[in-house]
Amino acid sequence: MSVRIGVVGTGMIGRDHVRRLTRSLAGARVTAVADVDGARARAVAAALPVPARVLASGLEVVADPDVDAVLVASWGGSHEEYVIAAIEAGKPVFCEKPLADTAAACRRIMDAEVAAGRRLVQVGFMRRYDAGYRAMKQVVDSGRIGAPLLMHCAHRNPSVPGHYTRENAINDTAVHEVDVVRWLFGEEIVAVRVIVPRRNRNSGDLQDPLLFLMETASGAVVDDEISLNIRYGYDIRGEIVGEEGTVALADPGPVVVRHAGTTGGRVPADWQERFARAYDVELQEWVDGVAAGLPAGATGPSSWDGCAAQVVCDAGLVALNEGGGLVPVTLPDAPALYRAAPPDRAPDLAPDVAPDVARKAVS
Amino acid sequence: MSVRIGVVGTGMIGRDHVRRLTRSLAGARVTAVADVDGARARAVAAALPVPARVLASGLEVVADPDVDAVLVASWGGSHEEYVIAAIEAGKPVFCEKPLADTAAACRRIMDAEVAAGRRLVQVGFMRRYDAGYRAMKQVVDSGRIGAPLLMHCAHRNPSVPGHYTRENAINDTAVHEVDVVRWLFGEEIVAVRVIVPRRNRNSGDLQDPLLFLMETASGAVVDDEISLNIRYGYDIRGEIVGEEGTVALADPGPVVVRHAGTTGGRVPADWQERFARAYDVELQEWVDGVAAGLPAGATGPSSWDGCAAQVVCDAGLVALNEGGGLVPVTLPDAPALYRAAPPDRAPDLAPDVAPDVARKAVS
Amino acid sequence: MSVRIGVVGTGMIGRDHVRRLTRSLAGARVTAVADVDGARARAVAAALPVPARVLASGLEVVADPDVDAVLVASWGGSHEEYVIAAIEAGKPVFCEKPLADTAAACRRIMDAEVAAGRRLVQVGFMRRYDAGYRAMKQVVDSGRIGAPLLMHCAHRNPSVPGHYTRENAINDTAVHEVDVVRWLFGEEIVAVRVIVPRRNRNSGDLQDPLLFLMETASGAVVDDEISLNIRYGYDIRGEIVGEEGTVALADPGPVVVRHAGTTGGRVPADWQERFARAYDVELQEWVDGVAAGLPAGATGPSSWDGCAAQVVCDAGLVALNEGGGLVPVTLPDAPALYRAAPPDRAPDLAPDVAPDVARKAVS
Amino acid sequence: MSVRIGVVGTGMIGRDHVRRLTRSLAGARVTAVADVDGARARAVAAALPVPARVLASGLEVVADPDVDAVLVASWGGSHEEYVIAAIEAGKPVFCEKPLADTAAACRRIMDAEVAAGRRLVQVGFMRRYDAGYRAMKQVVDSGRIGAPLLMHCAHRNPSVPGHYTRENAINDTAVHEVDVVRWLFGEEIVAVRVIVPRRNRNSGDLQDPLLFLMETASGAVVDDEISLNIRYGYDIRGEIVGEEGTVALADPGPVVVRHAGTTGGRVPADWQERFARAYDVELQEWVDGVAAGLPAGATGPSSWDGCAAQVVCDAGLVALNEGGGLVPVTLPDAPALYRAAPPDRAPDLAPDVAPDVARKAVS
Repeated sequence: MSVRIGVVGTGMIGRDHVRRLTRSLAGARVTAVADVDGARARAVAAALPVPARVLASGLEVVADPDVDAVLVASWGGSHEEYVIAAIEAGKPVFCEKPLADTAAACRRIMDAEVAAGRRLVQVGFMRRYDAGYRAMKQVVDSGRIGAPLLMHCAHRNPSVPGHYTRENAINDTAVHEVDVVRWLFGEEIVAVRVIVPRRNRNSGDLQDPLLFLMETASGAVVDDEISLNIRYGYDIRGEIVGEEGTVALADPGPVVVRHAGTTGGRVPADWQERFARAYDVELQEWVDGVAAGLPAGATGPSSWDGCAAQVVCDAGLVALNEGGGLVPVTLPDAPALYRAAPPDRAPDLAPDVAPDVARKAVS
Repeated sequence: MSVRIGVVGTGMIGRDHVRRLTRSLAGARVTAVADVDGARARAVAAALPVPARVLASGLEVVADPDVDAVLVASWGGSHEEYVIAAIEAGKPVFCEKPLADTAAACRRIMDAEVAAGRRLVQVGFMRRYDAGYRAMKQVVDSGRIGAPLLMHCAHRNPSVPGHYTRENAINDTAVHEVDVVRWLFGEEIVAVRVIVPRRNRNSGDLQDPLLFLMETASGAVVDDEISLNIRYGYDIRGEIVGEEGTVALADPGPVVVRHAGTTGGRVPADWQERFARAYDVELQEWVDGVAAGLPAGATGPSSWDGCAAQVVCDAGLVALNEGGGLVPVTLPDAPALYRAAPPDRAPDLAPDVAPDVARKAVS
Repeated sequence: MSVRIGVVGTGMIGRDHVRRLTRSLAGARVTAVADVDGARARAVAAALPVPARVLASGLEVVADPDVDAVLVASWGGSHEEYVIAAIEAGKPVFCEKPLADTAAACRRIMDAEVAAGRRLVQVGFMRRYDAGYRAMKQVVDSGRIGAPLLMHCAHRNPSVPGHYTRENAINDTAVHEVDVVRWLFGEEIVAVRVIVPRRNRNSGDLQDPLLFLMETASGAVVDDEISLNIRYGYDIRGEIVGEEGTVALADPGPVVVRHAGTTGGRVPADWQERFARAYDVELQEWVDGVAAGLPAGATGPSSWDGCAAQVVCDAGLVALNEGGGLVPVTLPDAPALYRAAPPDRAPDLAPDVAPDVARKAVS
Repeated sequence: MSVRIGVVGTGMIGRDHVRRLTRSLAGARVTAVADVDGARARAVAAALPVPARVLASGLEVVADPDVDAVLVASWGGSHEEYVIAAIEAGKPVFCEKPLADTAAACRRIMDAEVAAGRRLVQVGFMRRYDAGYRAMKQVVDSGRIGAPLLMHCAHRNPSVPGHYTRENAINDTAVHEVDVVRWLFGEEIVAVRVIVPRRNRNSGDLQDPLLFLMETASGAVVDDEISLNIRYGYDIRGEIVGEEGTVALADPGPVVVRHAGTTGGRVPADWQERFARAYDVELQEWVDGVAAGLPAGATGPSSWDGCAAQVVCDAGLVALNEGGGLVPVTLPDAPALYRAAPPDRAPDLAPDVAPDVARKAVS
């Protein structure tokens, strides 16, 4: 009865998804794994309550008859191959972001889906499953604050790893706001700018911070502060400004401490802490959708969303060298398969699967 | 590989636990159910991905060979029979609060456990699994605010159902603070008072609100406002006052809306919304403990905790008629089985099972 | 054109009022001062832009023809003599709290006012002039939260001076809540209790903290935490619980700092910081009322308010030794002079004198 | 002993300053007034406790021997004439913003001051006197959050009057952030941009909202949302992002109301409510400085500050038509008179004049 899942890539994020599917969520079972580092795959497989098969390659995982659906968490450059193989095998596939590492690769994935005639791919933009962003979307969609005109975002990291590059500020960090902005506003991003302030002395050669600006099709403007080494915590902030009001993410700390002259709460230490619950909801809804035979993308970001994010980030990388100038985003036309956007969540799925989240309406 | 769970009682809370075990949590499967209303049990069983067996009685559920562990969610007066049967069958049992409807019954349950020579019972006090209370306990235990001297609580219901009685304010509502106070302070409640303010005109003959006061063994004092029909929402508040600081539950709303002259967040509509996540964590940790063969109570409230809460509530009911006078709480001696309190969570369980919760340390 | 003010008592609070009248407020001039310590009075007088006369006694200040109104800030035991002298001289008098140090003395002051046939006395309960309490009163009076049923207060001091006594917790500290509760609820306090938790180890022999409970004529109940050495700051908290909502003082910190894993604001260091603005507004409104020839108490607490607070505190001192038992408050009948309570503020005074405060309505 | 003040211009803001000087502050007396509308001036003068003289022109007010210092609150185009006359008469002058309506006029004012050899002019940028911005500056100056790299501002008006123009969004509204940014960062603004989002349908032909971007000499970047008709309230927000932390203005509401499913506070209705106290502190400190014979600008914004703000706004007006392009700000060299910037507040003035504000340190 459980959805049998094959996992391609058992690095940090892949291993964490395996743990989640096995120890936190309902309705799934990991039956096969593969990793470029076979020992790593074997260790993950052996730690499962029912050991999974360790296969020689991601393609074998996709092809395995004991695999109903595929989770791709290998390095970005390898996504295209596995995702297309899954599409061709007719198996639903959850692909960690990025969908692929070039826009052309994203388009080939969409071509494969179009050829298959149905949606099978969901991309791992987990913020759409965060209680804060979901409540924010409900407020915007309710019309209470009028049409959204602006959004202010901040994406603050306490530190970034040593291999983090200048470009990662856009394609690894800002990409999360790119997706969530498209989703919250319900429209495409048509132009971007990057403004470069003086550098944080904690950041060596990296450009830190950045101000990443996006303009949507209707003319809404989003400013996104990207901070990479701000030390004090992992802090994700967002406020949508409408014609008659605003809605902002609340501070997530569970308690307020009064001590030594101050009163206040805790800032999350890292993204795992901040978004642990969003990852859970994301994968649970994906598993539920697969089990229910819903088309992929019915309950989450589609390969079109993955492609659009990639194209916007590509423009962002150009903008990073443009000294604040406006860089247009040239999206391909969305294939018809993606145009009739499915509802954000399948209506008959909502009440049962996630009653807690469904209630988080803000009236 | 899943823990096979038999559910006794498929009313509102029982059905919700079945949904949780089936659709939200990992590692469990509901294999048998019973209810005094057979049709209700059949409906619940039929809706499962793998239909459960519908048995004629709770005792049959306990006895069923396909049941590894029992979840009791029938009416309070019937708990004793099923819990003792489970103990005698050597099966772990999760019992919704109250453990039993009299202190004497609670003692008989403990006697059965003592006779069995090991702990098998966990009582459903879900607040211990709420992120807010857990962070509060971490702050207190860290010593940062000094020894806890006072606690201010409020337990506000927007409304109560028609069958709610005067006594329910203590034994159904305040009982949650009774348990959480014992847990947070790590000591017993030795005396209580009830102070009766003027009545809320929305509450008919019920005494609403109440001020329920508790004193702990070391002399700490807790005041607990019980409001039953306050209309504006379900609002659970708590602040522990230490010698050099305080820690309080934060408002749980995920977003802040600015609109029509005000800025603010949402208050939960009801206890399901407020504690949905705590129920999930509670049951997941119980299932994990059962699967790991840990003694019950290793990761949650034991039958001793259920008994102590009952005795305190009994004193509370006396106090309700005493005009504010102090009523001592006469606890039996805790059997040795419960005295060596296990750690709040088994150390080797924590990192893997609930990394999100484990990280919520407040430094 | 300025109101010429004579100040009796130039200790800490008297000197601060002189500074306020001279350097911060409009419409007043200090023309005469006296103090038991003549040198102290001379130093204060000499520091004024126009030096005031230094007189040999408070009675000479009251009698001075260059004094239009009197401010009494000497020690409590001496208030009666000066206040009655001012009444007999027909001069408005602002008397720091307490009005007098016994209820009998307070009654003699009221007798003198009654004999004079008009109100001349205002007592220095400054919280009625705090923006937070004023907004709270507006919300309660608006009826939005329904009838007030409960109030939760905390009065936390970081430390108390060496001469502070066990009784001061009631008659010097809790007295502020006594007055503000009478004012917010618009009714008398009819009974009190004191509940004594375990002691803060920072407090030596003092009973710290205390829980001081008040019941009003209509049956509303107020719990007031008195903490004397809580170290972390001076923290004044209050929440009124109505039938359909609540209103609470907001945290007063002007900024939020995110640093080292936390987000939060500053707690005031002491009462001077917390209530600096309330003292300004209090005295400005008193000076304005005097200049406008309004009866004293038209814009602030009257000698009846001072008397009632004293009687409640006397009961509180009895309650301090009663182990939590209820102690009735036996108020004398209010003389007719005080019964027709004037509005909280003279309507034609409000818009001009304090537009900022007047706007602080909470809708 | 009082500072005798002549007021030029008795429209809304001028009349409000007269009220403030007369009814709220210490040490000042309005002795002469003039207005282009003589009847308006007569009405204001007659309402004073001691009627002021009504003169035929602003120049007569400046020249009046009973005037020690001048407050200019006439329309912007007339400021230059009166301010220069005051400088030439050797009288301190407080000039409402803008200092003058062209940068050239501002420079002529500075020339006059330089010729006079001393500073006599203070410009009415009241935000520097707001408790929130002052606390923010203290945090930045303390070094706790590291060097400031970014600032996020929002300046939201519920509505603007009918005569408000497209340019006013910069030179009347954003000018407040221009000044406060220069003061908070302690450096000049060297370039600006204006980004134009889709229009608020409540705003007719006005460009509303705007994103106004400023870059400082050291490369810090400030984004400033200007909203003109956002309906929900007057909301001023600011957050400085440093290398290791941030500091933001707190919400100013004095109480939190829980009602009808929400918990929250009040947003100020308009700028008078939001900044009432800042205006009081501003004028009190100016009066105190005049009385103490301190150079103007010792305690507040100088004519150099007025000039710099004007030059930045001029660039902003160019940027408004540049489609987001960067427009450099070409400041003249600051004359030596302004270069040795005096401390923000004269040290020996602080403790006495504004103890409440002085304590608002955030540690």
